[in-house]
Amino acid sequence: MVKVGIIGATGYAGAELVRILLNHKEAQIEWFGSRSYIDENYADIYRNFFELIDADCLGDNMDELASRVDVIFTATPQGFLAGVLNEDILNKVKIIDLSADFRIKDVATYEKWYKIEHKSPQFIKEAVYGLCEINRDKVTTQTRLIANPGCYTTCSILTAYPLVKEGLIDPDTLIIDAKSGTSGAGRGAKTPNLFCEVNESMKAYGVTTHRHTPEIEEQLGYAAGKEITVNFTPHLVPMNRGILATEYATLIKKPDGTYPSYEELKAAYDKYYAKERFVRVLKKGVCPETKWVEGSNYVDVNFVIDERTGRVVMMGALDNLVKGAAGQAVQNMNLLFGFDEAEGLSMVPMFP
Amino acid sequence: MVKVGIIGATGYAGAELVRILLNHKEAQIEWFGSRSYIDENYADIYRNFFELIDADCLGDNMDELASRVDVIFTATPQGFLAGVLNEDILNKVKIIDLSADFRIKDVATYEKWYKIEHKSPQFIKEAVYGLCEINRDKVTTQTRLIANPGCYTTCSILTAYPLVKEGLIDPDTLIIDAKSGTSGAGRGAKTPNLFCEVNESMKAYGVTTHRHTPEIEEQLGYAAGKEITVNFTPHLVPMNRGILATEYATLIKKPDGTYPSYEELKAAYDKYYAKERFVRVLKKGVCPETKWVEGSNYVDVNFVIDERTGRVVMMGALDNLVKGAAGQAVQNMNLLFGFDEAEGLSMVPMFP
Amino acid sequence: MVKVGIIGATGYAGAELVRILLNHKEAQIEWFGSRSYIDENYADIYRNFFELIDADCLGDNMDELASRVDVIFTATPQGFLAGVLNEDILNKVKIIDLSADFRIKDVATYEKWYKIEHKSPQFIKEAVYGLCEINRDKVTTQTRLIANPGCYTTCSILTAYPLVKEGLIDPDTLIIDAKSGTSGAGRGAKTPNLFCEVNESMKAYGVTTHRHTPEIEEQLGYAAGKEITVNFTPHLVPMNRGILATEYATLIKKPDGTYPSYEELKAAYDKYYAKERFVRVLKKGVCPETKWVEGSNYVDVNFVIDERTGRVVMMGALDNLVKGAAGQAVQNMNLLFGFDEAEGLSMVPMFP
Amino acid sequence: MVKVGIIGATGYAGAELVRILLNHKEAQIEWFGSRSYIDENYADIYRNFFELIDADCLGDNMDELASRVDVIFTATPQGFLAGVLNEDILNKVKIIDLSADFRIKDVATYEKWYKIEHKSPQFIKEAVYGLCEINRDKVTTQTRLIANPGCYTTCSILTAYPLVKEGLIDPDTLIIDAKSGTSGAGRGAKTPNLFCEVNESMKAYGVTTHRHTPEIEEQLGYAAGKEITVNFTPHLVPMNRGILATEYATLIKKPDGTYPSYEELKAAYDKYYAKERFVRVLKKGVCPETKWVEGSNYVDVNFVIDERTGRVVMMGALDNLVKGAAGQAVQNMNLLFGFDEAEGLSMVPMFP
Repeated sequence: MVKVGIIGATGYAGAELVRILLNHKEAQIEWFGSRSYIDENYADIYRNFFELIDADCLGDNMDELASRVDVIFTATPQGFLAGVLNEDILNKVKIIDLSADFRIKDVATYEKWYKIEHKSPQFIKEAVYGLCEINRDKVTTQTRLIANPGCYTTCSILTAYPLVKEGLIDPDTLIIDAKSGTSGAGRGAKTPNLFCEVNESMKAYGVTTHRHTPEIEEQLGYAAGKEITVNFTPHLVPMNRGILATEYATLIKKPDGTYPSYEELKAAYDKYYAKERFVRVLKKGVCPETKWVEGSNYVDVNFVIDERTGRVVMMGALDNLVKGAAGQAVQNMNLLFGFDEAEGLSMVPMFP
Repeated sequence: MVKVGIIGATGYAGAELVRILLNHKEAQIEWFGSRSYIDENYADIYRNFFELIDADCLGDNMDELASRVDVIFTATPQGFLAGVLNEDILNKVKIIDLSADFRIKDVATYEKWYKIEHKSPQFIKEAVYGLCEINRDKVTTQTRLIANPGCYTTCSILTAYPLVKEGLIDPDTLIIDAKSGTSGAGRGAKTPNLFCEVNESMKAYGVTTHRHTPEIEEQLGYAAGKEITVNFTPHLVPMNRGILATEYATLIKKPDGTYPSYEELKAAYDKYYAKERFVRVLKKGVCPETKWVEGSNYVDVNFVIDERTGRVVMMGALDNLVKGAAGQAVQNMNLLFGFDEAEGLSMVPMFP
Repeated sequence: MVKVGIIGATGYAGAELVRILLNHKEAQIEWFGSRSYIDENYADIYRNFFELIDADCLGDNMDELASRVDVIFTATPQGFLAGVLNEDILNKVKIIDLSADFRIKDVATYEKWYKIEHKSPQFIKEAVYGLCEINRDKVTTQTRLIANPGCYTTCSILTAYPLVKEGLIDPDTLIIDAKSGTSGAGRGAKTPNLFCEVNESMKAYGVTTHRHTPEIEEQLGYAAGKEITVNFTPHLVPMNRGILATEYATLIKKPDGTYPSYEELKAAYDKYYAKERFVRVLKKGVCPETKWVEGSNYVDVNFVIDERTGRVVMMGALDNLVKGAAGQAVQNMNLLFGFDEAEGLSMVPMFP
Repeated sequence: MVKVGIIGATGYAGAELVRILLNHKEAQIEWFGSRSYIDENYADIYRNFFELIDADCLGDNMDELASRVDVIFTATPQGFLAGVLNEDILNKVKIIDLSADFRIKDVATYEKWYKIEHKSPQFIKEAVYGLCEINRDKVTTQTRLIANPGCYTTCSILTAYPLVKEGLIDPDTLIIDAKSGTSGAGRGAKTPNLFCEVNESMKAYGVTTHRHTPEIEEQLGYAAGKEITVNFTPHLVPMNRGILATEYATLIKKPDGTYPSYEELKAAYDKYYAKERFVRVLKKGVCPETKWVEGSNYVDVNFVIDERTGRVVMMGALDNLVKGAAGQAVQNMNLLFGFDEAEGLSMVPMFP
């Protein structure tokens, strides 16, 4: 039984980790870390866990925690982990970081987009970007530090990856229009996230400046084999969970001057996802809907060719708290400890 | 492995049964019955099951089905099961009926409230009212026919049961004001259930005439040891899942003329629920919220004494598709086959 | 043209006042008061007013304000107005107070339920409770101070008033189960009011202790001609606007031992409301829905007799920000200045 | 006083027309046409109009109607108006068609995208595309037939128009990602529009094939001075009202090789919209939100330059039932009869 510590257990992603781990056969939570609620009963804060959990919140002392558990999930604000991480900790425990601290390989890029100094750049190189479907071979029992991908990022990358990787689209024409449920904004008490402000409304935000942009560019750049820039626009949607990414790119014509066919693009998706447990390439003509993946670790993807404009419209949907955060983190944990990759992740999507 | 057939698998309650049974270790669905979608792929209708289920919908031939499975769930319109049930079928399979056909012992009462003729009253007496927390000793491996309680009914009864049973309230003063998410209205295409009609609105319906009234009166009447009448008012709420019942009743004064204390009422709740896996009596002062039980088989209950008016306000919350329908049906199945009562029902409530 | 000042213009009720007054022919807003946003452009805070209003927020100096306008609306926290009111101010301007400071005639009752000391009890007697449909004759051009009724209160009182006033129900059996949209909770940044906490959930709150209780009891007590106690339970509903009150009371039998008929109860409602512009007694069998009054100053009411239990179920619906706050305040202003009572209040309910 | 007839008065757009016209000083509705509800009381179907309207629904006999009113609004399914229109009718009344029958000048294009035969192509040339901000000079008291623009179209065109017209972007790179509330799907009873199917979900639909595409291409083609093709993707959002369009296009570099500045693009927007009553160009950095225009005839627009990718991100928001349908239709009526263009359209956006 793996002993688990969570720092940031009282945020939405942290609570989702708890929900998932409660049904995980090989893991047991030892530490519910939360700076804001120290000594409060965890089930008083998240009453869904009443009678399921009887534990008080502890703090965020990584050194102490490292000596008590086998793996630490940090669902913390940007900069926290980079500020406290050291070799001693990494020698004792594995760390799965749900923040962005170790996602971006280039420090200058990180500091530019996040507008904070990186306090432990020496660990960036070692950190493995934990998008299992693409980096599975690097997430091994030897790995010490996982940079768990962002919610928008996971959806955006997996939706376009096969076509970028196979050179079927021009990656510099990529435009990602993403829509997210409000849980992505966290549990902080801010006026713009009040029910009456979000409900019955929709807006874009962080236009051209959202921090997930460089993460998407870096990872899809690896697939493209070159540096790329993309447009990424997030939107806030009046629903709790779910991200839908609609992506546009110009198709690369074949030598004969024609566009690749549906079957050719489908083959690219199948090449990478046919055997994947958590990526579902939908039937022709079916558009992903966030509700069909809610509560589960699935990503649903599909695409439509538009010969009139020479573009392909790609779509992907996932639950931002599961595959976009806690579910993917557990998927990484499973690989780190040699468990079945799907252990604890058999939640069937809940509809309606 | 118990073989399961579902008639009405394409309704919301039927789909929830499927969601639950997919993670049930002892059961396997053999028959997805649906009059409306015969020969269509089940996962084309409920896309959450894509890649999880590969089966076409079959019809509603109970005779054929009875020879192929061990247990049949009927999530069907009122009158269906009563119209086709016979001794031969009951000799072959167990039946868990999610409709109201066998819930009410008095045929005249059934026919008056449901306004249809009961076609097989001979089986009413045998049918066990499957509210496990109250009738557990009657749900045995010998039982052939379960009348699975209604959603409003389960919530309404469990919320008031201990105080009625212990004679702490006057049952004839009981007023039940219940609020339900819209999935309770089913998946039929009706204008009043369109998004734009339900969203941003709230209303009562079926005032003084809702069919769950006699079911509540019968069951709480058993607890009271006499016939009772209650006011029951259902309301439609703009949310998918969840029922909240707010119940009012006059407290019976003690011989010394004082009202029973919080501790005395709490003791009554604990007497019946302390050991129950799926009923949670909340801490003093905490009001049940539907979101804290969403997706799970829990009922959360609590109460507040109002000495000013001499009444107690009782509150209960459950997920209408789980404890109010499919979850309770699986709980009954577990008892019918001697499984752990909680098998397949370990879904942790999902928040947010 | 009447000059208007608003203190608390940046709360939801204040903003609704602004929305209504912009289309009022006889009034012009001179002062947008807001302690939190002084010197900020009002339309930067409520962007619906962009290009409609070009004014900066001012403070809450009542003395200065009193010399610049003809009427002041105070949409402020409890205790504010009582803390600053004086004879000098009242000699200069009329005041319509949307807080509870002057609603309750008995200071001890106010202080008990609101848990604050009343700082200017000397004005309580003079204040007129501005429920126009009932107190219209007291809202005159001579009146200086209006206590604008609460949102729950307006709905709860108007729903039951005719039956209480006519002695058709026993007022001490009255149980009010009220449901409110979330705008009633205000624009303060609190975790329980975040979108993800409210959406897809429902709960009761303030059970037996909500501050609108004594206000309801006082006003319905006047109608009953005696002191009464009632149960009042508010609930939070995942919608922006709207209050629905479902009310239960025991019918008084007629001398011949029968219950009053539908026609007799209807006559009572018509007696008080047939000529009212903003109260609509719905057709027999139609239940009020909050959506049908959204954005308007209407209250829709109706009732159903339950001979089985001897009770009547009364229902009322209004928009908490309009008839429940700002609309009613403008209705009072119209009477105070001798305008057409409906001036500025011709907003047609918006559906969907 | 202009006499108005509405065909399709019981659809959502028809009901919104009624809501607006009730407060219009120069118009009076004489005919509530509805094939489905003939002889039913209009206020029984839309209860928001209870006590405001006392009229029964009439049919869709255009010939009879033409002799009784001055203007007819047809809020009808595609093909209806084209199927019944004739010279005689047009000689008697003005017609404002909210369907697409006369929006597209090229019959073949219409028939290809709408998949129906056009029954009266002879009137297409005469019909004026009623996007007042762009075609105001063609909407005169001489005009007989208005093709009222589509909801997505109005939003999509107005958002990009200044930059296309001024040649600041390459129109063939235009990608329109649009999101709509569910009222755009109409009041027909269809399973995909049920509350439980739409709520808590988001999806694209009609990808590459939505019928508003050729309408956008035609109108923006006029602005560009050439034929263009665009990508247009509509999405369904769990809210009642509102359309948000997020649009992407490549900026045309200036002769010196630099991109146009914020000020240069802003000047283009101001050139066309500074004097427009219903188009608001927001302050720099403010993204349009659908809630800020709800219930009003406003379109809010803004843009962000992305020098990294050489694109501009344009955003527009409107209420699909007002500026996207009924409000714009009334705006056209005002011009057709020489009224103040804003008469009846002074509804202040409702927030929250």
